[in-house]
Amino acid sequence: MAPAGAKRGILERLNAGEVVIGDGGFVFALEKRGYVKAGPWTPEAAAEHPEAVRQLHREFLRAGANVMQTFTFYASDDKLENKYFEHVEEAEWAVQVLKSTGKPVAANMCIGPDGDMHGVSAGECAIRLVKAGADIVGVNCHFDPLTCVQAVKLMKEAVEKAGLKAHYMVQPLAYHTPDCNRQGFIDLPEFPFALEPRILTRWDMQQYAREAYDAGIRYIGGCCGFEPYHIRALAEELAPERGFLPTASEKHGPWGTGLEMHTKPWVRARARREYWEKIRPASGRPLCPSMSKPDSWGVTKGHSDLMQQKEATSQDQLRPLFDKCSATQ
Amino acid sequence: MAPAGAKRGILERLNAGEVVIGDGGFVFALEKRGYVKAGPWTPEAAAEHPEAVRQLHREFLRAGANVMQTFTFYASDDKLENKYFEHVEEAEWAVQVLKSTGKPVAANMCIGPDGDMHGVSAGECAIRLVKAGADIVGVNCHFDPLTCVQAVKLMKEAVEKAGLKAHYMVQPLAYHTPDCNRQGFIDLPEFPFALEPRILTRWDMQQYAREAYDAGIRYIGGCCGFEPYHIRALAEELAPERGFLPTASEKHGPWGTGLEMHTKPWVRARARREYWEKIRPASGRPLCPSMSKPDSWGVTKGHSDLMQQKEATSQDQLRPLFDKCSATQ
Amino acid sequence: MAPAGAKRGILERLNAGEVVIGDGGFVFALEKRGYVKAGPWTPEAAAEHPEAVRQLHREFLRAGANVMQTFTFYASDDKLENKYFEHVEEAEWAVQVLKSTGKPVAANMCIGPDGDMHGVSAGECAIRLVKAGADIVGVNCHFDPLTCVQAVKLMKEAVEKAGLKAHYMVQPLAYHTPDCNRQGFIDLPEFPFALEPRILTRWDMQQYAREAYDAGIRYIGGCCGFEPYHIRALAEELAPERGFLPTASEKHGPWGTGLEMHTKPWVRARARREYWEKIRPASGRPLCPSMSKPDSWGVTKGHSDLMQQKEATSQDQLRPLFDKCSATQ
Amino acid sequence: MAPAGAKRGILERLNAGEVVIGDGGFVFALEKRGYVKAGPWTPEAAAEHPEAVRQLHREFLRAGANVMQTFTFYASDDKLENKYFEHVEEAEWAVQVLKSTGKPVAANMCIGPDGDMHGVSAGECAIRLVKAGADIVGVNCHFDPLTCVQAVKLMKEAVEKAGLKAHYMVQPLAYHTPDCNRQGFIDLPEFPFALEPRILTRWDMQQYAREAYDAGIRYIGGCCGFEPYHIRALAEELAPERGFLPTASEKHGPWGTGLEMHTKPWVRARARREYWEKIRPASGRPLCPSMSKPDSWGVTKGHSDLMQQKEATSQDQLRPLFDKCSATQ
Repeated sequence: MAPAGAKRGILERLNAGEVVIGDGGFVFALEKRGYVKAGPWTPEAAAEHPEAVRQLHREFLRAGANVMQTFTFYASDDKLENKYFEHVEEAEWAVQVLKSTGKPVAANMCIGPDGDMHGVSAGECAIRLVKAGADIVGVNCHFDPLTCVQAVKLMKEAVEKAGLKAHYMVQPLAYHTPDCNRQGFIDLPEFPFALEPRILTRWDMQQYAREAYDAGIRYIGGCCGFEPYHIRALAEELAPERGFLPTASEKHGPWGTGLEMHTKPWVRARARREYWEKIRPASGRPLCPSMSKPDSWGVTKGHSDLMQQKEATSQDQLRPLFDKCSATQ
Repeated sequence: MAPAGAKRGILERLNAGEVVIGDGGFVFALEKRGYVKAGPWTPEAAAEHPEAVRQLHREFLRAGANVMQTFTFYASDDKLENKYFEHVEEAEWAVQVLKSTGKPVAANMCIGPDGDMHGVSAGECAIRLVKAGADIVGVNCHFDPLTCVQAVKLMKEAVEKAGLKAHYMVQPLAYHTPDCNRQGFIDLPEFPFALEPRILTRWDMQQYAREAYDAGIRYIGGCCGFEPYHIRALAEELAPERGFLPTASEKHGPWGTGLEMHTKPWVRARARREYWEKIRPASGRPLCPSMSKPDSWGVTKGHSDLMQQKEATSQDQLRPLFDKCSATQ
Repeated sequence: MAPAGAKRGILERLNAGEVVIGDGGFVFALEKRGYVKAGPWTPEAAAEHPEAVRQLHREFLRAGANVMQTFTFYASDDKLENKYFEHVEEAEWAVQVLKSTGKPVAANMCIGPDGDMHGVSAGECAIRLVKAGADIVGVNCHFDPLTCVQAVKLMKEAVEKAGLKAHYMVQPLAYHTPDCNRQGFIDLPEFPFALEPRILTRWDMQQYAREAYDAGIRYIGGCCGFEPYHIRALAEELAPERGFLPTASEKHGPWGTGLEMHTKPWVRARARREYWEKIRPASGRPLCPSMSKPDSWGVTKGHSDLMQQKEATSQDQLRPLFDKCSATQ
Repeated sequence: MAPAGAKRGILERLNAGEVVIGDGGFVFALEKRGYVKAGPWTPEAAAEHPEAVRQLHREFLRAGANVMQTFTFYASDDKLENKYFEHVEEAEWAVQVLKSTGKPVAANMCIGPDGDMHGVSAGECAIRLVKAGADIVGVNCHFDPLTCVQAVKLMKEAVEKAGLKAHYMVQPLAYHTPDCNRQGFIDLPEFPFALEPRILTRWDMQQYAREAYDAGIRYIGGCCGFEPYHIRALAEELAPERGFLPTASEKHGPWGTGLEMHTKPWVRARARREYWEKIRPASGRPLCPSMSKPDSWGVTKGHSDLMQQKEATSQDQLRPLFDKCSATQ
């Protein structure tokens, strides 16, 4: 959850009917560049390697993002601008406090279409957060784009049915997750170090941007896995509606048209929308399945096994986990 | 093909029995960051956005690369340090010229295990290039790591059988290509804009580094698709042999050990080598196949259809290609 | 829907707590043997080739089936013992009529867990049929075993919650259908001539028999796709509960133990339950996806396009269908 | 290997340029019907249940087979008409003996395109068997149709290059085996009880019949996995060349045309060749891979581990095999 005023003018834009393109996933992108540690995912890179963080900001901006989220969560006392809550009550309370500062407030949930927050449905959550003062509601992270758009649709329907009004946002993963249960991608066996085969292509992203737009969502961005070229794809798909292309499109022929000069005629034949729009890309992994069975070991929320730990688990504590893990495979 | 002396000391290191870690794929990485156009793949970013290129250099260095290839091919008259030849005769001639400068010379081929250069086998090519003066021979690009290592093995066997001596290098793709024919990944229907499901994980990379090392290859790097974290994986796998970890490992627990603090016990159970070493990652794409049928339309080398064109193909020229492409699917 | 008294004693057995094993799919099995035409699926083979039908009966019996359904649907005026209804009202009425004959009545539905009959849920259907006099309720056809067992579970829960009592039966497909929408396997692009990769193994069948038994279902059989060895697998899995093996088990080592004499040690190592129970069989089809997108062209029930036709569609009528089909792929 | 004279006239037909359709796989088909035990695969059913065997003969005949192989191998002393040899020398000797009886002799090999018999290539084997007197040479079992056709092509090329003349036959598996190594399907982890997802469709069979015919093969049949409808598909594909359809085609609309009366328009749209010819059937198994890694434990021919055993392996002998098997997965 973040006060959306980090950059001025979001509400003005949304109220004017404009499309706002969000940015991508900083921690995942910087992990691959060597500046963030997977597991803790802490943002000390902002202090240790500011030029690397700045470069990524520059790339998302160039790709078409209107909004730059500060790369600071968990980082300091006075800048704690992103916060995760488990209960909708806490979220309501936080929205009320932030609202009192006079800034616009955006409230995002990690939620699937049939997911919920401790028994409260997506629609109900949205209503409560809008009543609490949220200007923008939506979902981010944990699921793939089409799943997230579906969840925001349910929120929008519920909010409108309740006679309320809000703006909607969506910031999904850049990974396909058709096999996730309600906990999302964290329970997939591939999380977080073998998600590569699930990465969305730029064409998947264009489809996502279109579906989000058609669903009435106007703040369209990304979360974990989004690289600059994914954001650019959103901006390119919505260029007709926005009236302009992002800067980075100077290095990108729309729909593969940059292939027009290729020497092989069958590669030149790929220089068109119909080709890339319909492609069903192979994984090149014939010994791998197409779906996974999420873990969860039957443990439900609130279980003591799920308490946040202060220290790394010792080898002695890990051993029984390793055994259990092998047995369930 | 490049004079290997761009950075001093490669031969000294190889002669001393050290492992040299190469860098990754600049054009593909910079395309995703928004600075290179797919299709022409030209390197004007070096002049237009030097900070973006420099940042990527920094990341590969931090990830463990000993060698930084200049990002300049096709860029100027006097710096033409990479060059592609179709016939082994041309390559031989080029090696002789470069050798005459007194610098060490590395000669790489894009070749599969049963591939060849216009009818000359991998082993025969290697012998001729070594005889022409190449200090290092190997393969780069077009195929996945295990395919490339296999090809270098054949080269090494042939060179040794001929009573010659050389160093060996390998710079494969970071994409799985079990379905490629001898032209490599360019003929895959996914090239170049839907290769995501084929991207190798860091664990695939560790396996590759080990197999390359065991095959006697000592210059081990990457080509298209290699991101900094892939290079880091090579350096981590070979840390015991090299005696040190790369700088970027300060942000990486070996074999997933950074997950030791995760709240969910089934995620903590992934903090170990046996888990990631054996993982068979799902693609999350149940409507996609695992392999593709490479294009090629029955056209063989030398066909007029394959001549390099100076200008982009016009829409009128493209139309029959589009039709043909649809018909063959 | 069929009066269950075709063979005497079903209710006696079920009332006594016994497990009744059903037979398999006659029309699909006889189609593969060359005696039934796919499309019309009519049973004239009973008259034209009685020895072929009799042989299949013999095989199912030998495999362990307690019940032989007459192979007569659509066959004559006075023997119309199987009938399909679209509305639960019709089914209720039919159950009442059959009940008045004094015979036991079994009422099956083609229904998925979240499917329904024109808006009436599985649970509600079951309640109404039991109230109408059905002794046995359950589902058959259209979905795979685990989906069907899930649907019967919902029926049982609803019936028991309503304070009623019934026996439960299940006769699923022998094809995996995780990708079906509520219309079942008919809308899969592979129906009916390319379903082979979906055929269940004997081990899948043992898992199904166990899950059905654990769910309290006591009439456990099969529908389209079930061959004699599938029925045998049901009877073998439930041999401990039933106290005996079927005759055909004299030609079957349980859990692959017939492999104990194989010359290759790695094949001998497959002579055990843990091997076959966990196997994840490959399709050997690397160019095929794992799931399909069911057809349906957005047409809903009651649409004039879906009226039963008396005559084969002419080539002129088929042409636009062919075009539409190609366009939607 | 079998004297082809079991049915008179094969050579006459082949010499006259006719196509001969073979039969299918008796032991595998009868195993699924409950009369043969997998593992030993012995043919006592011919004595114990002659009506079941006779019924299957009838079905293959009706499906278009010109030739009925006797179901007698390993069955008696004087009728030993099928025999397997490991060395080409033995096969040569057997051909010579059979030839001396004055009957036509067909010699089949279980061999892949790059397979061989103890170091003798497919082409060389064919030459030696033709020189020894074989009238018909070819391959059967162990590999899928396209692999087998490829092997026979190599044999034909070699025989013709040697200035010899023969007829060619092929009797492949009805299972896809792109992942087999030279030992064929026995080493696949799915052998023999989980091969279902690999079963060829009738359309795969039509493609096979066409490719075999185009390769100059005129005795075209099947081995393990072939059911009557598979044989019918061969006969239907080659009906234009043979001038007639098989009897069982009275129950089969060519290329799915029996679907013309279906109520759903999207199913009617499948009543045509282009639909079924191009279909890429899904497996409905999203947790399964598309290919397997064949077993073999590094054991090569002649190893004592591979000796034929007289008695079933004891539990004590099996235990270390089970452990080894688990460790290699």
